[in-house]
Amino acid sequence: MTGLLPSYLQGSWWTSASEGGTIVRDASTGAEIVRVDSAGIDLAGAVDYARTVGQRSLGALTFHQRAMLLKQMATVLNEHKEELYELSKSSGSTVRDSYSDVDGGIGVLFTFSSKGRRELPNATVILDGPVEPLSKDGSFLGRHVYTRLPGVAVQINAFNFPMWGALEKFAPAFLAGVPSIVKPATPTAYIAEAWVRILVDSGLLPDGSLQLVSGSLPGIFDLLRLGDLVAFTGSATTAAGLRAQTADGVRFTSETDSINASVLGPDATPDTPEFDAYVKQLMVELTTKAGQKCTAIRRAIVPADSVGPLVDALRAKIAERVVIGDPHAEGVTMGPLVSTAQRDEVLRQVAALRAAGGELLMGSAEAPSVVHADGSVGPAPEGAFVAPMLVGFADTTAPAVHEVEAFGPVSSVLGYSTLEEAAELVGRGGGSLVTSVATKDPEVATELLTRIAAYNGRVLFLNRDDARTSTGHGSPVPHLVHGGPGRAGGGEELGGIRSVMHFMQRTAIQGTPEILTAITGVWHPGAGTDRAVHPFRKSLAELRLGDQVESGFRELSLEDIEAFAYSTGDTFYAHMDEEAAEANPFFGGRVAHGYLLVSWAAGLFVSPEPGPVLANYGLENLRFVTPVKPGDSIRVTLTAKQITPRETDEYGEVRWDAVIHNQRDEIVATYDVLTLVEKELAPA
Amino acid sequence: MTGLLPSYLQGSWWTSASEGGTIVRDASTGAEIVRVDSAGIDLAGAVDYARTVGQRSLGALTFHQRAMLLKQMATVLNEHKEELYELSKSSGSTVRDSYSDVDGGIGVLFTFSSKGRRELPNATVILDGPVEPLSKDGSFLGRHVYTRLPGVAVQINAFNFPMWGALEKFAPAFLAGVPSIVKPATPTAYIAEAWVRILVDSGLLPDGSLQLVSGSLPGIFDLLRLGDLVAFTGSATTAAGLRAQTADGVRFTSETDSINASVLGPDATPDTPEFDAYVKQLMVELTTKAGQKCTAIRRAIVPADSVGPLVDALRAKIAERVVIGDPHAEGVTMGPLVSTAQRDEVLRQVAALRAAGGELLMGSAEAPSVVHADGSVGPAPEGAFVAPMLVGFADTTAPAVHEVEAFGPVSSVLGYSTLEEAAELVGRGGGSLVTSVATKDPEVATELLTRIAAYNGRVLFLNRDDARTSTGHGSPVPHLVHGGPGRAGGGEELGGIRSVMHFMQRTAIQGTPEILTAITGVWHPGAGTDRAVHPFRKSLAELRLGDQVESGFRELSLEDIEAFAYSTGDTFYAHMDEEAAEANPFFGGRVAHGYLLVSWAAGLFVSPEPGPVLANYGLENLRFVTPVKPGDSIRVTLTAKQITPRETDEYGEVRWDAVIHNQRDEIVATYDVLTLVEKELAPA
Repeated sequence: MTGLLPSYLQGSWWTSASEGGTIVRDASTGAEIVRVDSAGIDLAGAVDYARTVGQRSLGALTFHQRAMLLKQMATVLNEHKEELYELSKSSGSTVRDSYSDVDGGIGVLFTFSSKGRRELPNATVILDGPVEPLSKDGSFLGRHVYTRLPGVAVQINAFNFPMWGALEKFAPAFLAGVPSIVKPATPTAYIAEAWVRILVDSGLLPDGSLQLVSGSLPGIFDLLRLGDLVAFTGSATTAAGLRAQTADGVRFTSETDSINASVLGPDATPDTPEFDAYVKQLMVELTTKAGQKCTAIRRAIVPADSVGPLVDALRAKIAERVVIGDPHAEGVTMGPLVSTAQRDEVLRQVAALRAAGGELLMGSAEAPSVVHADGSVGPAPEGAFVAPMLVGFADTTAPAVHEVEAFGPVSSVLGYSTLEEAAELVGRGGGSLVTSVATKDPEVATELLTRIAAYNGRVLFLNRDDARTSTGHGSPVPHLVHGGPGRAGGGEELGGIRSVMHFMQRTAIQGTPEILTAITGVWHPGAGTDRAVHPFRKSLAELRLGDQVESGFRELSLEDIEAFAYSTGDTFYAHMDEEAAEANPFFGGRVAHGYLLVSWAAGLFVSPEPGPVLANYGLENLRFVTPVKPGDSIRVTLTAKQITPRETDEYGEVRWDAVIHNQRDEIVATYDVLTLVEKELAPA
Repeated sequence: MTGLLPSYLQGSWWTSASEGGTIVRDASTGAEIVRVDSAGIDLAGAVDYARTVGQRSLGALTFHQRAMLLKQMATVLNEHKEELYELSKSSGSTVRDSYSDVDGGIGVLFTFSSKGRRELPNATVILDGPVEPLSKDGSFLGRHVYTRLPGVAVQINAFNFPMWGALEKFAPAFLAGVPSIVKPATPTAYIAEAWVRILVDSGLLPDGSLQLVSGSLPGIFDLLRLGDLVAFTGSATTAAGLRAQTADGVRFTSETDSINASVLGPDATPDTPEFDAYVKQLMVELTTKAGQKCTAIRRAIVPADSVGPLVDALRAKIAERVVIGDPHAEGVTMGPLVSTAQRDEVLRQVAALRAAGGELLMGSAEAPSVVHADGSVGPAPEGAFVAPMLVGFADTTAPAVHEVEAFGPVSSVLGYSTLEEAAELVGRGGGSLVTSVATKDPEVATELLTRIAAYNGRVLFLNRDDARTSTGHGSPVPHLVHGGPGRAGGGEELGGIRSVMHFMQRTAIQGTPEILTAITGVWHPGAGTDRAVHPFRKSLAELRLGDQVESGFRELSLEDIEAFAYSTGDTFYAHMDEEAAEANPFFGGRVAHGYLLVSWAAGLFVSPEPGPVLANYGLENLRFVTPVKPGDSIRVTLTAKQITPRETDEYGEVRWDAVIHNQRDEIVATYDVLTLVEKELAPA
């Protein structure tokens, strides 16, 4: 008997004393790989360890520090890619299949690392939306903050992506500061164990931030409470069962297989590049991971006239490109399903589709002849091989075609007459992760989107212009949300920083500017200020929120406006033509250029000598509020608003609140000035 | 027998033929007001009407058009305030109580109208987040859009706010474009019928956008499907029951009563203004709506030393300010509960608190003597009166104090020793709508917030500086989210445009710039452009996305930099001091001012003669990418990116994509220019 797969719990590796357990076998040969059993596991200890040690170690880090660790983890995993590819072959994955699991998982870590540093503050609280003034005098303000959940994130994963599927949940949880307990699906648990071991050995994991359970999670739902989260990927039925077990207050998100659609637009006739792109995409989705993807195309919805040409073209493409066999063999492009149990289940669903009126238009439910690891070709009775199949339906509204999922290399083909009918068929899926549409026509795209968006988490538009660059119907990207309504689970994952928020609580905060400044790390007008030293003379080490410079007044003349106009070339009539400017509904006479005002303001607030302020790299939210006319004077007030030291540079960002007033104390303009400032003053 | 309350269904008023039904009585006198029964109602017809007629009529309007209607509805309701106050008195509400229900409801409509026009495009699709480039050559992009749900929003409301409670759900649904079916709670259904009648009579409601069910909703859950939504306000127990009945794919949100806390900071000793503000707020929360608010303070958590002084101060304040009686009488400041059934329920919960160790520190469970409508004072056996009560607990961890809700003028008082203990007590509530904290100390505020934010939907900080301007512990404001985790229902309402999203589906879109431009109404780089006419010569009627002007080059000299420096006063060393500028890590020599570049760019793209472009009102997302040095040349490309005509003005906003390049075709700067442009060209 083979050995038992260990779990990583409370900071060390643990193996059950079980002499039984589930035997995991090579998908192509049926050879035993490992046994999986968690009998005797101390789950309460693991949950408690996450809530105490894990929360504490992650809580000691800022978003940027956690993001840096994600990058380092990605780098370490990247160095071990080849061994992960090799291991994955036993699960039926070709190296190409592993690109989405192994490289995909590493890519998620890189993307979240980069987005964490670019889009989040170097802090532990995230601001959501602008300040809401709640009193006329500015003494009472409102705004929203996200703070991390105080508990543990429990992942229950599907077998098809043992690496990507866990890392796409782990990365946002980690960035949010919430520890994870990862439970992989048994058939590929040994692949999860491998990458977890690489991370453990790297020493990069903060204590308690990641635990791994190889085997089941007995009684986990009784241990969870408000502040904890369960994230599930798998079948819709299992999701419903788990959701029902989840206590009130425990967040539950699910991403479930759905009956995804791919629509061939009415303009994408068989003579168009869109048709070719559609066929190629369908071939890829049918055969990648042997169709074991929750995002795979289950329903090809095409103009009725195009059903025949599509079947022919797909058959030809598959004959040309697809070689079924053991991924250990050279030249194999499509492996087996993960297990013979899974193979039998897929064949049962194909039978159900045929019983509901489906006609096999391509492929066969018979066991295919395959390439063995040694290069020989023949039947493989112990292997989980299934050939690609296409099932046609005369009655496109047969419920089975929109409900039954054969989780393998199986799609249905449905003909449609009108765009409205195509959209209606998409909706019959009851909510999908993704629908793709092949069209070159923006009107077709817009009309279809309006009708199907509410039924989809993602919609991909394919045509000649993006066929080569498209990331593909079936490939979630870390930048965009992955998940969908209804049948697809009703959850959202990925989507960049959006998914970090799932591990945090949004709370509305009300209080004085002083209190809001302390809580948010962002200076709010009305909070304390300090003008003792020009803030451009201070390094990040010395600079404090509220450090401020207030300039004197500078008076504007008509000559100033004209000189600015001639030197910049901006002779817009509102600056140059008194009569026309008087007719303008906002100005009532010649006014200064907005760009003159911000340029002068810089001259008024600047401290010109070399110092810690390195550069002005941008400006945001500029609004011109009151026009400035000859004879008016302006002054500017600049206040340190947000300070973001970088983890990997000797400087950081400082955002300044800038307000220009006129001599009547009216606000002329408001904006944020963005600068780079050194962390420490250079030695004199 | 009194008459039956009608419902508003499928565009007309309908009354059940029932001869029975629930009798609703005056809360002070027990006099019958109306009967409520929906026996015989055609709910399937109402749901279908919403999904067809309602979806169609709302779908024909843009966000701005819906927002304008909300403002008009608010204005009409505002004209009928007095009659709504008068009607509400029978439910136990004083005119002051009605401010939160009637004026609060109208305020929600005004706020959503204003935010809808300021924060949403004049379109039907909302963009979420920036473009995500998914290919190196820019041919494949991703971004997120929100589109409305295709179904109906069913509201199940609580009795305490028959107007605000419905309008705070109706306003965001309406703005999103989703029709509502409103089901008020029976004890105050006649108040809901009154405001719905005012809106129906106003003729402002698009067909099918609002239906009212007076009575129950038999079998409603069997009628709902993906694309529909249920929004519930009421008890946690009822919420759990309804959630279980809700089909997969139907969104369910709930806002439930919670055991909210109010913490007196350790710095807020009895001699401080914070202590006074805390006592006043507690008095207000105990007595407003006779404590029948899901946001009321149920647990006063105060330093152990301050329990005695707090009880004394509160007793004195109540004796001075609170007059219990029939709201029809002059001078009454606190009315009865909504019904004698509710009174009996509250007294049962008070008994439960006392049985769990609670000691009545203030007030009495005996029926109070009250002011009658005719001004006489005495007992009111048919009225639902309850006196304010404060219950103390020696054991602050007794489960009952954190779980039992007496939904009336009842709070508990708990003493604490450390801030950590105070936070821990807050968390024991299992998730609250709101916690308030009285403190002047930003460190106390920050430490408490870090510990309690994840358990609260809203946290209010009260001190001497905002005591007069605070909107109050118990008052949700439309700008901030209302809702909370766990016991509070796990939902979110209000929060401005955030709540509009609850009635929409977020979908990730992938495709070419051309397709994304068509779908989103925002020009994406790479989509088509048109340079035939300078776009500043076009009114909104003529201007199209992609209309563009590309300038020629202008070369920069050292003299230009110096002239700009001297005229603006901005003599920052990077522009003026070659040696220092060379030492700068980003510049390596003297560079042009960023403000010079955008000023010159304006000179390069402007079309100066009077025309449809009225003003440049701002600028966004300016980033300086490549420094420009003497000898370099720049050119600018300006492209119409988003066009937003205003509903109520003769002009609208145009956002322009601006890119400055140098002579090496490197990007120098990118930004958005914001202008106001006339809808039509003025006649020559």
